[in-house]
Amino acid sequence: MTRFALTIEYDGRPFMGWQRQDHGPSVQQAIETAVERMTGETVAVHAAGRTDAGVHAMAMRAHLELERDLTPFRLMEGLNALLRPDPVAILACGIVPDDWHARFSCIGRAYEYRIVNRRAPLTWEAGLAWRVPAPLDVAAMHEAAQILVGRHDFTTFRSVHCQSESPVKTLDRLDVAREGEGVTIFAEARSFLHHQVRSMVGCLALVGQRKWSAGDLAAALAARDRAALGFNAPPDGLYFVRARYP
Amino acid sequence: MTRFALTIEYDGRPFMGWQRQDHGPSVQQAIETAVERMTGETVAVHAAGRTDAGVHAMAMRAHLELERDLTPFRLMEGLNALLRPDPVAILACGIVPDDWHARFSCIGRAYEYRIVNRRAPLTWEAGLAWRVPAPLDVAAMHEAAQILVGRHDFTTFRSVHCQSESPVKTLDRLDVAREGEGVTIFAEARSFLHHQVRSMVGCLALVGQRKWSAGDLAAALAARDRAALGFNAPPDGLYFVRARYP
Repeated sequence: MTRFALTIEYDGRPFMGWQRQDHGPSVQQAIETAVERMTGETVAVHAAGRTDAGVHAMAMRAHLELERDLTPFRLMEGLNALLRPDPVAILACGIVPDDWHARFSCIGRAYEYRIVNRRAPLTWEAGLAWRVPAPLDVAAMHEAAQILVGRHDFTTFRSVHCQSESPVKTLDRLDVAREGEGVTIFAEARSFLHHQVRSMVGCLALVGQRKWSAGDLAAALAARDRAALGFNAPPDGLYFVRARYP
Repeated sequence: MTRFALTIEYDGRPFMGWQRQDHGPSVQQAIETAVERMTGETVAVHAAGRTDAGVHAMAMRAHLELERDLTPFRLMEGLNALLRPDPVAILACGIVPDDWHARFSCIGRAYEYRIVNRRAPLTWEAGLAWRVPAPLDVAAMHEAAQILVGRHDFTTFRSVHCQSESPVKTLDRLDVAREGEGVTIFAEARSFLHHQVRSMVGCLALVGQRKWSAGDLAAALAARDRAALGFNAPPDGLYFVRARYP
């Protein structure tokens, strides 16, 4: 058996998320089907993170094992040909040791969240960004974001469907920056709770619109109560951007 | 009658182009229909440039005249509501003098062309950029592009359907720059021939792949013959970015 690591870009719009589902298409299923059509082998593809419906990836990492002897280049090219017309692309492929696990070996994950801060509707960015019509005070958002950095109980920012053992996570970075009408939020941690990034972004948007003060954000965090959440941002603007390994 | 100027963003993928056509949807028709639904008035909307099928705009300028007394803000908001779900957005709207004409008053037009220089297929950028798999030498492209800057007979870079009176145009700027796997070509002139930007980009891509030398590009320009064209780039990567007025 040879273990291959994949770097994957995908547009989350047509999918129910990364993970295989009974009720609709998933990125995992698209790739597993392409592998089976190419090699005749039924495999499980394991990813660094399981993105939700409508969430995108610039460089998701995943692994799979194959009996068949293939070069990484041939596997990548074959999968890209067979994945068409699904908006999933294998950007890189390599052989990894048998104990390398895309999820369990991963020591850092990064997400980017894209807001378009304007009144007019989105055109080609529809489903690829969150449009916020009211002007956002990005300096206030960045400053308030620093309250969330560090080791905290993130229960307020955790979906009721979260399967993590503990609500305590260490957030390494949460940066907010503007470039024209685009506002980008960058989040980095060893791991995240389900909906954590979207929940943090939703509350930061309230701060940016001056509906919440930084103190309101601190109080929401301290409440450790999902009911204290201000707003959960839509999946449209969320991109898995990076997985780190030792 | 009040004359309104519009600034319009659109995703060209679902359209046969800017101009009204018998055989399919156009951006012009979408806007004219929205104006009629909003005001009851049948108007012609005139644009600074007529983009082809599949070509996008970040800030097309256009004008129309209305009998009805409306504020520019109400017109913009109403059109944006009625244009849904077409990927067309009115970014700005203002009142202009009766002799201001989006096309005839325009003294400068700028286009951007987006290439994604990678082997893997595109995902969310499909239809929004041209994927060129072979590595592009962007420095060679930029240097060769300077051959085209200035006043020339651009017959080689002109579609057979071009309606311009003369093939002689003055190209003010043609810059090629890379950022990661993205290669952007920026072109600026008082006006362009039909297919001129796509034809110049196609030939520059040949230079970038070292299939053509700068000398080959100079010879193609000097030939003043459409048959000397190396390649016409697809509409996918082309964006109308700016119109200038006195």
